[in-house]
Amino acid sequence: MKKTIAIDMDNVLVDIEQHFIDWYEKDFGVRIGKDKLIGIPEIEAFPNQEAVKQYLYTPGFFRSAPVMEGAIAAMDILLNKFDVYIVSAAMEFPQSLSEKVEWLNEYFPSIHWTNIVLCGDKSIIHCDYLIDDYIKNLDPFKGQPLLFSAGHNANHTHHKRLNNWNEVLNYFSSI
Amino acid sequence: MKKTIAIDMDNVLVDIEQHFIDWYEKDFGVRIGKDKLIGIPEIEAFPNQEAVKQYLYTPGFFRSAPVMEGAIAAMDILLNKFDVYIVSAAMEFPQSLSEKVEWLNEYFPSIHWTNIVLCGDKSIIHCDYLIDDYIKNLDPFKGQPLLFSAGHNANHTHHKRLNNWNEVLNYFSSI
Repeated sequence: MKKTIAIDMDNVLVDIEQHFIDWYEKDFGVRIGKDKLIGIPEIEAFPNQEAVKQYLYTPGFFRSAPVMEGAIAAMDILLNKFDVYIVSAAMEFPQSLSEKVEWLNEYFPSIHWTNIVLCGDKSIIHCDYLIDDYIKNLDPFKGQPLLFSAGHNANHTHHKRLNNWNEVLNYFSSI
Repeated sequence: MKKTIAIDMDNVLVDIEQHFIDWYEKDFGVRIGKDKLIGIPEIEAFPNQEAVKQYLYTPGFFRSAPVMEGAIAAMDILLNKFDVYIVSAAMEFPQSLSEKVEWLNEYFPSIHWTNIVLCGDKSIIHCDYLIDDYIKNLDPFKGQPLLFSAGHNANHTHHKRLNNWNEVLNYFSSI
């Protein structure tokens, strides 16, 4: 039986940091560098935090986000060897539900609908591995937690860290 | 720590059989009795199966479905004692995703968004109990599977069966 990998969307498959930066620049004419997001909740890097928070509830925000560098090529390789589930804590933003499925269909058409999970709390998800940028999702996970680097998690040290999709592929190449 | 119960929507919280019957009567003027759905996939009970299949893709179908008898009162009791997760295999019908969340917010406002899971394959969901009408969901479940009676599962005998929400409450009253 193939091993199972649960993979988060925002900050893992989706370059949501870049998307916040791009939308903020479009609205306010100020370009915040990615280095400004390091070590703090991403919203706090922006002068108008309330505006950035509203993006999360804005139709089209999640649908138009860019894909993370290296994710598409890496997924093709992982899908040959593992059962991959996309697990996104989307339920807080109901307008994002169909957008996230449409986004996956565009960038990852090989992911079947049976393998997509939109949820809130991820603690009831059971796979062999979880690739996620949030400690709150990785801490209760029963399998092997894998921390995907994002600005906000830069100072966390208590999970195995993978900095990008090349490091994900290296990690799984020997499994 | 509270025990966890995963609860399916269609045919468990949602009286989807009744909804098929009502929509079919509205469209074709023919009322199919619930007894005609016993022992067969529910769609096969209707003379125009293609029309019934299309309901699943029709905006408003899931949003307007009636709640299962006894489910609201039973949920109030279960929520006091257990961590309840709503787990619906909605991903096959993307238009249903937001409708199902809106439906839950109307009938079960005490269910927090953290505890709603919309997925495809339920095999990666790990709870202590799963209440579901489909054998395909119950068979791979690692906890205690509980078969909620529906016409289509009338002939299945290899899981603990609960016929209605009173029997669910009885079952959990001693746990």
